[in-house]
Amino acid sequence: MQFTAAQISILLSGKLEGSADTTVSSFGKIEEAQEGQLTFLANPKYEEYLYTTNASIAIINEGYELRHQVKPTLIRVQDAYTGFAQLLSKYQEMVTQQLKGIQQPSYISKSAKLADDVYVGAFSYIGDNVHVAAGTKIFPNSFIGDNVTIGANCMIHPGVKIYHDCELGNHVNIHAGAVIGSDGFGFAPQVDGSFKKVPQIGNVVIEDHVEIGANTTIDRATMGSTTIKTGAKLDNLIQIAHNVEVGNSTVIAAQAGVSGSTKIGNNVMIGGQAGLVGHIQIADGAKINAQSGVSKSMKEPYSAVTGSPAGDYTSSLRSQAVFRNLPQLEKRIQELEALVRQLMEERVVSGE
Amino acid sequence: MQFTAAQISILLSGKLEGSADTTVSSFGKIEEAQEGQLTFLANPKYEEYLYTTNASIAIINEGYELRHQVKPTLIRVQDAYTGFAQLLSKYQEMVTQQLKGIQQPSYISKSAKLADDVYVGAFSYIGDNVHVAAGTKIFPNSFIGDNVTIGANCMIHPGVKIYHDCELGNHVNIHAGAVIGSDGFGFAPQVDGSFKKVPQIGNVVIEDHVEIGANTTIDRATMGSTTIKTGAKLDNLIQIAHNVEVGNSTVIAAQAGVSGSTKIGNNVMIGGQAGLVGHIQIADGAKINAQSGVSKSMKEPYSAVTGSPAGDYTSSLRSQAVFRNLPQLEKRIQELEALVRQLMEERVVSGE
Amino acid sequence: MQFTAAQISILLSGKLEGSADTTVSSFGKIEEAQEGQLTFLANPKYEEYLYTTNASIAIINEGYELRHQVKPTLIRVQDAYTGFAQLLSKYQEMVTQQLKGIQQPSYISKSAKLADDVYVGAFSYIGDNVHVAAGTKIFPNSFIGDNVTIGANCMIHPGVKIYHDCELGNHVNIHAGAVIGSDGFGFAPQVDGSFKKVPQIGNVVIEDHVEIGANTTIDRATMGSTTIKTGAKLDNLIQIAHNVEVGNSTVIAAQAGVSGSTKIGNNVMIGGQAGLVGHIQIADGAKINAQSGVSKSMKEPYSAVTGSPAGDYTSSLRSQAVFRNLPQLEKRIQELEALVRQLMEERVVSGE
Repeated sequence: MQFTAAQISILLSGKLEGSADTTVSSFGKIEEAQEGQLTFLANPKYEEYLYTTNASIAIINEGYELRHQVKPTLIRVQDAYTGFAQLLSKYQEMVTQQLKGIQQPSYISKSAKLADDVYVGAFSYIGDNVHVAAGTKIFPNSFIGDNVTIGANCMIHPGVKIYHDCELGNHVNIHAGAVIGSDGFGFAPQVDGSFKKVPQIGNVVIEDHVEIGANTTIDRATMGSTTIKTGAKLDNLIQIAHNVEVGNSTVIAAQAGVSGSTKIGNNVMIGGQAGLVGHIQIADGAKINAQSGVSKSMKEPYSAVTGSPAGDYTSSLRSQAVFRNLPQLEKRIQELEALVRQLMEERVVSGE
Repeated sequence: MQFTAAQISILLSGKLEGSADTTVSSFGKIEEAQEGQLTFLANPKYEEYLYTTNASIAIINEGYELRHQVKPTLIRVQDAYTGFAQLLSKYQEMVTQQLKGIQQPSYISKSAKLADDVYVGAFSYIGDNVHVAAGTKIFPNSFIGDNVTIGANCMIHPGVKIYHDCELGNHVNIHAGAVIGSDGFGFAPQVDGSFKKVPQIGNVVIEDHVEIGANTTIDRATMGSTTIKTGAKLDNLIQIAHNVEVGNSTVIAAQAGVSGSTKIGNNVMIGGQAGLVGHIQIADGAKINAQSGVSKSMKEPYSAVTGSPAGDYTSSLRSQAVFRNLPQLEKRIQELEALVRQLMEERVVSGE
Repeated sequence: MQFTAAQISILLSGKLEGSADTTVSSFGKIEEAQEGQLTFLANPKYEEYLYTTNASIAIINEGYELRHQVKPTLIRVQDAYTGFAQLLSKYQEMVTQQLKGIQQPSYISKSAKLADDVYVGAFSYIGDNVHVAAGTKIFPNSFIGDNVTIGANCMIHPGVKIYHDCELGNHVNIHAGAVIGSDGFGFAPQVDGSFKKVPQIGNVVIEDHVEIGANTTIDRATMGSTTIKTGAKLDNLIQIAHNVEVGNSTVIAAQAGVSGSTKIGNNVMIGGQAGLVGHIQIADGAKINAQSGVSKSMKEPYSAVTGSPAGDYTSSLRSQAVFRNLPQLEKRIQELEALVRQLMEERVVSGE
């Protein structure tokens, strides 16, 4: 797709300087952009590149004062970064809106109900009684199990697997290879030391505006639902166990893991590779540092923890600081012991 | 599927109270169950819900004494939870037994041998000389490489990838996206600092009654086999490296990782996100806490470790307790130093 | 495939002892090998098995002196292990070279350009304007998005997902279920506490001779490229975030994670389950121990760190050693406190 400077300027309600007919067909960073690309200048650190860039169009801040002549056509907006991001969003929307219809071969059960403009990529499997609402794109090689419902304007990227009976809201974005609704890890120990599977007959409910990263796994509940609430954002390779609840607008970084039945509040931030044990509660706004091991509930809203096992953020940092000096600390104790021994001995001597 | 109270009562050898004709078609937790659902009461904490639930049928303990009238038809059994779990198992068996036959399109090599009642989902690939025994279900979008053998009554969930020459026993359950038999991570360092791949020509052997979680990866051996023994249960996103052995009825929680050639005994329990280095032995019944980093063999059966690097469980907990007070400990040392300095100075003065 | 001792001997420029007509069709470890298999003896620890093995052919070191008669035909080479590995490589090459042509059903866009001898497995999806060079094998159930370029002699194992616009060099090996080019995890916080997606319009560039493990995820850049440089080797279940750079011949073990915009130098070694925060630099030749949490740049080439948070390797090991004795250390402080208290009290008494 090609766009003229005039079109972009109108889209952003910007002010045009230079040729209105200049065209671009892709995007580039200001230090790398080539002819035919659109770029932006937001960070003053990159200012020099504005005068050397080969980009054809540059978005800049309204109030920016040019120090020399520039090659690109300029579009001035209130905030150049926001304007550029808006443009990217619009561009991606246009690209994905072109995806429509059912590619062949695909497998769609007769009892499945798909809105007219849904996209189903080749080699995707849509099971019995599946419902998919308008504007949703299901990319190739995906598996949508029986009785799954998917809301409007979702993106199901390639190779996503959604087990039977799970429910997705609107504007849900699931990245490639993610697994939604696999069995919770529940086994009853038997007297002979073996384990017997506890059937997992609940489901996973994903509310609106949730993003799920690539190869993340979310297990179905034993009974009831594992729930990811509105606006939560999950990165790649995350493990969410059965019956977990993730609150609204909670953000979880890559490779973190949440054990069974733990309830996470709203606006919580969980760092990468952090782990949470099962059956605990995390209050709203809590911050869990990367690689933390959270073994008990965080009841105080907006509190922060770090470390494994995790402790209060500030005092854990202090302990970690001392930890780095432990050998010196031990030496100081040895020196004290020598001195005190000397004092004790002298006391004995002088006491005689 | 619909079931009557009479049918369920017979199935569980239970005692019926109320209308034998009441029907249910799904399951629910006692605090949430709706009309047409079956529920159970096992935990006395939930007793009150028995008198308010909208469930149509409830399974309760033989000896439970009703305090008021109840709406649902009751089925009394020795242990309500066990009865309910039995029912779930039977139900899931019935649902999956309906899956039979080869969905189209699928790719099945002419040299593959599949038992009559095997299910192969659409877009599954079955390579040359593959053998699949009776009752096994292979869900859509799965890849079964050349010469793989799969025993009876296995569940291969959607998008599982099994590389060539791997062997699965009976009643093996592999969840979506798991990869069995990818190359072990073996590279020989070259003089110029680059690495040369060491061919990985072994396989993976998975014995009977093993469960493998979603997106878990199990690498093939360099030579010989990576082995997961009878009844072992592996959660999601686990890494098992080449030539590892996992013992009978060993349980590994999500995101744990086991490095190459490590041998894990029987009935071992490994917590989530734990890591084991390569070439070590873990004795039977060992317990490895979540997020532990095990860097040497555990030779004592039924011993336990925690921490990274992992140490004996009890003494590590003690060290962790002191760690939390390290800043205070340092302060105590400072105070001691001040006092001892004072004593030393006074001694000098009085000694003069 | 069957090979005679004569053929193998010529292939390895080895010296034959025994029947030149002996045939083998597979490989085995010396302690397990059966008739019809080829084995080798390199490690003197396994010497005894040479005299009991059922292998039909054994590769041994040139200078090895036989102590008894042996059953297998022998092939003597300078270094038995290297010879055996060469043979394995050749064997695997021959097996994969047999893979050619387009299996059906597959989906290949009319605008895609595939070299003549490319293999495309069934149920693979090749998008618009994809380029695939000679000798590359794309296994079943893979997804290659629009505008992707793949070099020569690559192996794309089953179920790999490569998003649009990514670029792969030559001799790249990507294992099953890996995801290349999923969206970076970028969200702008809004005033109401919710998050707005920042479009991710960059790509992933993978240079020559890179290996990517099963179910590993590599996110596309926000703008520009996430880059994996020549000869880098990545194990399974690794997370590489947007705009990361991984240097030449750098090796990353399973389940490690690298946060956004971090630049990793050449010949770096990163242990399993290690985590790196975003926006840092790691110098050439650095060593990061398993489970480390690296929170700041490593500027010194060939330096090493361990621990979470990570510190200098040697001093962290010392701190860890003291950590294990923390309870005793605390006891020593208590004893010192008691003695000093006694000395202080005596001083007061004697000072009166």
